[in-house]
Amino acid sequence: MRVITLTTDFGLRDGYAGVLKGVIWKIAPEVQIADISHLINPQNVMEGALTLGRAAAYFPEGTIHIGIVDPGVGTARRAIAARLGAQYFVGPDNGLMTILLEQAEHNHEKVDVINLDEPQFWLPSISNVFHGRDIFAPSAAHLSQGVLLESMGTSIQDPQRLELPVPERLKGGWRGQVLSIDHFGNLSTNLEKDLLANLNNVKIHYKNWTIDGLISAFGDGEPGQFVALIDSSDHLSLNVVNGNAAEQFNASIGDEVELYG
Amino acid sequence: MRVITLTTDFGLRDGYAGVLKGVIWKIAPEVQIADISHLINPQNVMEGALTLGRAAAYFPEGTIHIGIVDPGVGTARRAIAARLGAQYFVGPDNGLMTILLEQAEHNHEKVDVINLDEPQFWLPSISNVFHGRDIFAPSAAHLSQGVLLESMGTSIQDPQRLELPVPERLKGGWRGQVLSIDHFGNLSTNLEKDLLANLNNVKIHYKNWTIDGLISAFGDGEPGQFVALIDSSDHLSLNVVNGNAAEQFNASIGDEVELYG
Amino acid sequence: MRVITLTTDFGLRDGYAGVLKGVIWKIAPEVQIADISHLINPQNVMEGALTLGRAAAYFPEGTIHIGIVDPGVGTARRAIAARLGAQYFVGPDNGLMTILLEQAEHNHEKVDVINLDEPQFWLPSISNVFHGRDIFAPSAAHLSQGVLLESMGTSIQDPQRLELPVPERLKGGWRGQVLSIDHFGNLSTNLEKDLLANLNNVKIHYKNWTIDGLISAFGDGEPGQFVALIDSSDHLSLNVVNGNAAEQFNASIGDEVELYG
Repeated sequence: MRVITLTTDFGLRDGYAGVLKGVIWKIAPEVQIADISHLINPQNVMEGALTLGRAAAYFPEGTIHIGIVDPGVGTARRAIAARLGAQYFVGPDNGLMTILLEQAEHNHEKVDVINLDEPQFWLPSISNVFHGRDIFAPSAAHLSQGVLLESMGTSIQDPQRLELPVPERLKGGWRGQVLSIDHFGNLSTNLEKDLLANLNNVKIHYKNWTIDGLISAFGDGEPGQFVALIDSSDHLSLNVVNGNAAEQFNASIGDEVELYG
Repeated sequence: MRVITLTTDFGLRDGYAGVLKGVIWKIAPEVQIADISHLINPQNVMEGALTLGRAAAYFPEGTIHIGIVDPGVGTARRAIAARLGAQYFVGPDNGLMTILLEQAEHNHEKVDVINLDEPQFWLPSISNVFHGRDIFAPSAAHLSQGVLLESMGTSIQDPQRLELPVPERLKGGWRGQVLSIDHFGNLSTNLEKDLLANLNNVKIHYKNWTIDGLISAFGDGEPGQFVALIDSSDHLSLNVVNGNAAEQFNASIGDEVELYG
Repeated sequence: MRVITLTTDFGLRDGYAGVLKGVIWKIAPEVQIADISHLINPQNVMEGALTLGRAAAYFPEGTIHIGIVDPGVGTARRAIAARLGAQYFVGPDNGLMTILLEQAEHNHEKVDVINLDEPQFWLPSISNVFHGRDIFAPSAAHLSQGVLLESMGTSIQDPQRLELPVPERLKGGWRGQVLSIDHFGNLSTNLEKDLLANLNNVKIHYKNWTIDGLISAFGDGEPGQFVALIDSSDHLSLNVVNGNAAEQFNASIGDEVELYG
């Protein structure tokens, strides 16, 4: 049984995500559909890319990830489908699949990207404002039924990529930044676990605060304590135990975080 | 594999929608279930009807749409099930299926409505405040298993209908209104695409604003620009590119929109 | 076809619940997954226990309920799986399954609880902050595929329990409290239906208000009226017809409610 996932900025109120499921099940009645998120901030392609990037690898081989954060819908921006190692992506060509692409390249996996320019795999009538319903959902559904990626459009070599912020080497440490803030108010950074491996007695600076050392689990800190730990995607994360760090420190995406050790 | 959809005002916090799935899968273990929305404003039957109306036609033939926005639960209002062309509706008889009914009639499709008055298709014990769980979910599940609609209750000819606001002819144009506001803050009106076909150089008036002409996709406007386009359900929609028109113009359902051309 | 349910405090924005589905479907591709709630207030184990407790019995026999509200993740708190009559629970050993346990005991059903201490049923790599993904989801998936509960860990006799507030006998009545507040703003109490059976002409006191008698359905009151009725889980509930009692009366969990008759 194939899985299709959905990552969008559609919200949960208006039925847009439900419509995608209707379109998919009309073509592929037995497919499993998982919502990853429909609460990506409107038009925030980077946030969509990060959310999809953290989730995709946990899905079965052959899973098709539909990503729709698409301010360019209806314009000349391409619609694409891609095979990225064992996972597939279907969505606008605006960088949403950047992390999936980087993961596949990092693992030396085969990458194939096509421009979805064969209308026979779309709905008969196309709205200029809802390609999710009219192009991406039916394309993903056809793909799940065994239609060859290569038959769905023209091969391309230059999919759009987002530029992800890269940590900067400091004397005796690193400067990174807050990459995402989750529902709990935890601040996830672009400082990977490996960067900390060579640092003894790490000290972390954020705004006017310094954190001495990492804890290994939330419960190892005191309730209300500002702590650092390695999060579930192997990045340095700043957190308030049983609290909301983002609210307490008025945090924003892009805030600088430095570590020394 | 049959599909059942859910459109309710239950919210997402309390587990009420999950309970419906439990009840359905107990009777119909293989059925696919799609959430359309659980964030209809409490008791807002019109909003439920519009949301269901925009989504239903995209589902496979034979899909059963459960709609539950039900301020009259437990009173004398009837529980109904209906065959509306290729789609089914199960829910309270309060107008929630108005648009599905109108679509079927417009397409000259057969409509059959029954009063769900055969308790053998309900749960054994009925709460006066949760017919979704005790009557609608089990009825839809039985229907998905091949139970005949006609065997589930008494045929009726007079299901409740909502009165939808109709555009008004003006000299050289039309006066309509904002019918719904979505998660992006886009204002969807009751002015259908066809009304604009005969107007040249259309001008749209909303509050103190005038929009000159339509654009065909969001990306054809400038970020922040107030624009008009044909939305994904073929109605005139007022939008701020990459912004939130509802917040910016303090919009409300029922606001007047005039078009001239 | 087996059902797995999810009750968590993960929120709906970050993709954490979607990841659980990926992990489950990788091991158990045909299983049905129902979201009960991902909006339990962060770290609020009692709220999770109540939400799961109200929903579980409506699911098919053999359903596996994953509950994750887990402030102790990564510490010495145990991970458990349990058979509770016809239902299963998988999650942290912190009282989340209290109501399922009490329901099983009340029905004289067999209860078996094991400490999930056999790593072959987990993901290969375990994060200290996301046992939902790395331990609970794969354990539930293996259970759904017929792995014996007993083979997944060591039997234990002392799972954690929450202490639920018990109504207090008054002269001629009972004092209970608000146990949960739902999306509609309805106040559900710990006063069960049976306590009211022996009271004539019941009077209910809440803050400075008195309600005379129960109504049987919302529609039997006037819009805006403050009313009491028996809710869908057979407890006394205080409500504003077509309104929000929680907002109107600034209600809190734990507020006292007295009934006399």
